[in-house]
Amino acid sequence: MTNTASIIGGGVIGGGWAARFALNGWNVRIFDPDPEAERKIGAVMDNARRALPMLVDVAMPAEGTVTFCETLEAAAEGAALIVEAVPERTEIKHKVYAQIEAVNTEGIIASSTSGIMPTELQSQMVHPARLIVAHPFNPVYLLPLVELVAGAQTDATMIERAKEIYAGIGMYPLHCRVEIEGFLSDRLQEALWREALWLLHDDVATAEEIDAAIAYGPGLRWAQMGTMQTFHLAGGEGGMRSMLAMFGPCLKWPWTKLMDVPDLTDDFVNKVGDQCDRQARDLVPRDLERIRDNNLIGIIRSLKQGEWGAGAVARAHERQLRPEPVAAAPMITQSRVVPVDWTDMNGHMNEGRYGQIFSDAAETIMAAVGADDDYVASGLSYFTVETTIKYLKETHAGERVQVRTIVTEGVRKKLRCLHEMVRASDGEVLATCDQFMLHVSLETRRTCEPGPEVAARVAALAAAHEGLSQ
Amino acid sequence: MTNTASIIGGGVIGGGWAARFALNGWNVRIFDPDPEAERKIGAVMDNARRALPMLVDVAMPAEGTVTFCETLEAAAEGAALIVEAVPERTEIKHKVYAQIEAVNTEGIIASSTSGIMPTELQSQMVHPARLIVAHPFNPVYLLPLVELVAGAQTDATMIERAKEIYAGIGMYPLHCRVEIEGFLSDRLQEALWREALWLLHDDVATAEEIDAAIAYGPGLRWAQMGTMQTFHLAGGEGGMRSMLAMFGPCLKWPWTKLMDVPDLTDDFVNKVGDQCDRQARDLVPRDLERIRDNNLIGIIRSLKQGEWGAGAVARAHERQLRPEPVAAAPMITQSRVVPVDWTDMNGHMNEGRYGQIFSDAAETIMAAVGADDDYVASGLSYFTVETTIKYLKETHAGERVQVRTIVTEGVRKKLRCLHEMVRASDGEVLATCDQFMLHVSLETRRTCEPGPEVAARVAALAAAHEGLSQ
Repeated sequence: MTNTASIIGGGVIGGGWAARFALNGWNVRIFDPDPEAERKIGAVMDNARRALPMLVDVAMPAEGTVTFCETLEAAAEGAALIVEAVPERTEIKHKVYAQIEAVNTEGIIASSTSGIMPTELQSQMVHPARLIVAHPFNPVYLLPLVELVAGAQTDATMIERAKEIYAGIGMYPLHCRVEIEGFLSDRLQEALWREALWLLHDDVATAEEIDAAIAYGPGLRWAQMGTMQTFHLAGGEGGMRSMLAMFGPCLKWPWTKLMDVPDLTDDFVNKVGDQCDRQARDLVPRDLERIRDNNLIGIIRSLKQGEWGAGAVARAHERQLRPEPVAAAPMITQSRVVPVDWTDMNGHMNEGRYGQIFSDAAETIMAAVGADDDYVASGLSYFTVETTIKYLKETHAGERVQVRTIVTEGVRKKLRCLHEMVRASDGEVLATCDQFMLHVSLETRRTCEPGPEVAARVAALAAAHEGLSQ
Repeated sequence: MTNTASIIGGGVIGGGWAARFALNGWNVRIFDPDPEAERKIGAVMDNARRALPMLVDVAMPAEGTVTFCETLEAAAEGAALIVEAVPERTEIKHKVYAQIEAVNTEGIIASSTSGIMPTELQSQMVHPARLIVAHPFNPVYLLPLVELVAGAQTDATMIERAKEIYAGIGMYPLHCRVEIEGFLSDRLQEALWREALWLLHDDVATAEEIDAAIAYGPGLRWAQMGTMQTFHLAGGEGGMRSMLAMFGPCLKWPWTKLMDVPDLTDDFVNKVGDQCDRQARDLVPRDLERIRDNNLIGIIRSLKQGEWGAGAVARAHERQLRPEPVAAAPMITQSRVVPVDWTDMNGHMNEGRYGQIFSDAAETIMAAVGADDDYVASGLSYFTVETTIKYLKETHAGERVQVRTIVTEGVRKKLRCLHEMVRASDGEVLATCDQFMLHVSLETRRTCEPGPEVAARVAALAAAHEGLSQ
């Protein structure tokens, strides 16, 4: 049986919930009095339909139905879960819960509030036991975190049911065990935001500079480890205890606008240190450093794709480092180490990445014959038609490899290369690739003759490499 | 001519600087009186030698020399840049600068301090004009951010020279134009850390829960956009101004331990809104949402590699969704959309990723014949020896594709598959792959016969698929 989720309130958050549930196969009924709601939610749904299925390497379930209802009652009736995502005003929320309770006595009522305590939210309900907070993060369809909070009158089994529901739609339910305003995540986010607003207010820095101070540094760490584990590692071999000994005094200096900080008594330092050790489980700082580095490499490399933030910096560095291709025979078309995101769990370079390094090698050849970025921008390029790869030896993350390339055919539309990937340390051949390309018009997407200069350079390269392939 | 950097102080930060400079071809001279310094820095260097070259897709320059000096003077003499990375005590730093000045009158002196003002640091120097702050982030060899701060007596050209130096070693120099304690990044980080320490102190949450509240949600956003741009997008179509209107009142609620917040006057709201608009340049929120989503997809997918944080959540979701393989002929061995990190700048699926999807398809076949994770753990597997891929049609990010596989040979050590990748919407064949695998012992890394059950299932599959390949 298909589950039904009801979404009351269709802003950025309500729309995100609608998308995450529907794309995970739930039927969704939405109520929002805003006449623009359908258009706004439609825009969020479009983003989500494009983005969420890309996260996983399998097919998503068939999308559930998405229905816009005329009344709150029609949306809420019979739903297993009613998501409340209306403005952060307690009196509005109380009214919404009363309307829900009039037609639905069974479903979990989950408020998306960013920080109002569930005890306050449920205070006027007839059946308060089924109210929980389930606080998500924008974009709701991509970010896994959802904070679950029970109020004083919430039935404990509701949190367990909710955990199952949210895990089932690909989320990470974090049970905030102690009820507190702002829960956990928003307290941390707001502390940072307040400081950011002061910096901007006092003309210390612009919005862009304040953001750069996060996104090129600490933010990259926070995508994979929180502030506690990050500082546990910054303490070096002594972990968090060293960190508190080194920087504890600074916490008393005027380094933030707001200064109150817990006293770093021995008891408190031990409490923090013990919890950081417990969090690390059997991983010593050296293990965690390796994990952190692997994660950072993957994150920064992923940002190279769109040349954004730290990825743009890495690309710029790469351009500085890229050598001019040398017209040797064979030509050295790739020289690099195998990065950790090219490998499987055992550290072996994945089969698929052999195709990638040979494709990168072909780009070096293209650049060398003048079929470079400008040429591609002019509407002409080479497309690969067929490749045959022979896998001879394994290779591992961190190993330095080179690709040597011979142009074996370069007549008219045809460009054929024989690539050899070798281990840099001893020249052992790890794999070969016979790659056949045809020259194409990017406009018609059909083959055509290359420009005269490219044709001449391809022919010259083929002539220079003649006889090398045996 | 090779540049020389001098590193005074060899902890986690000094070691990170030594690694980043040396791996970018600078000669490095280190002084640290700690008898353990060489071992500690060696450990950081080992991490860096493994990690930094993986960031770029080209070869790094030849590594510079790394020399441990007996005296500070020997390390500092003649260096173009002297990095000070000693403990955060002003009197120690003043003494170090005096020693440097006795032997080096030309080089830039760059303090790694996390927050002491350069005006104070340079106050006792003979040539204070060349002192700057260059504040990095751990791990220094991977994170691009370095905050540059001038003191009252610093020569403005020093900041420009420093920008070039740090950009040349792959960093993002952020000039903090207004001198303030803690600069920008540490003020923001400390605000968050203070709140985190209070939450732990008051037993609201454990270190692990506090970290989860960042790493599964806001931290993923901060790896690619700071808090200002993030909230600009959370405001929906109205951007930051809507966000301030919605959440401004909450800033006055007791959602953090420390409550002081700038008054949200019209003037201030406009100032923040204007700066967010300027930061966005010609990108409207809809464009930025698309960029953010692409970045988040790439980041979360990169974390799947090591099954860490949000990546572990996505993997778990994938396992829930993975269908049982159906013994159809041909067998559907992949069903997914093309993710954005598989495509080039034009949104076309990269040549190399065709190899990956066919490799993934082969894993489905292996699982179907019983050569699954347990079988691999027992020391047996299939290795691909040769693949021939024919590229027939282009495909794009977001397109739903399937792979249909026929086992064309399944005798003794041999397993041969013919894969067809088709567009899910109309069944058009996009590419084919003839993949030849041999059964191997993972212990000897040589071919051997499969176990009897696997052999029988391979033979059965080959028999069921017989005649389908024409």
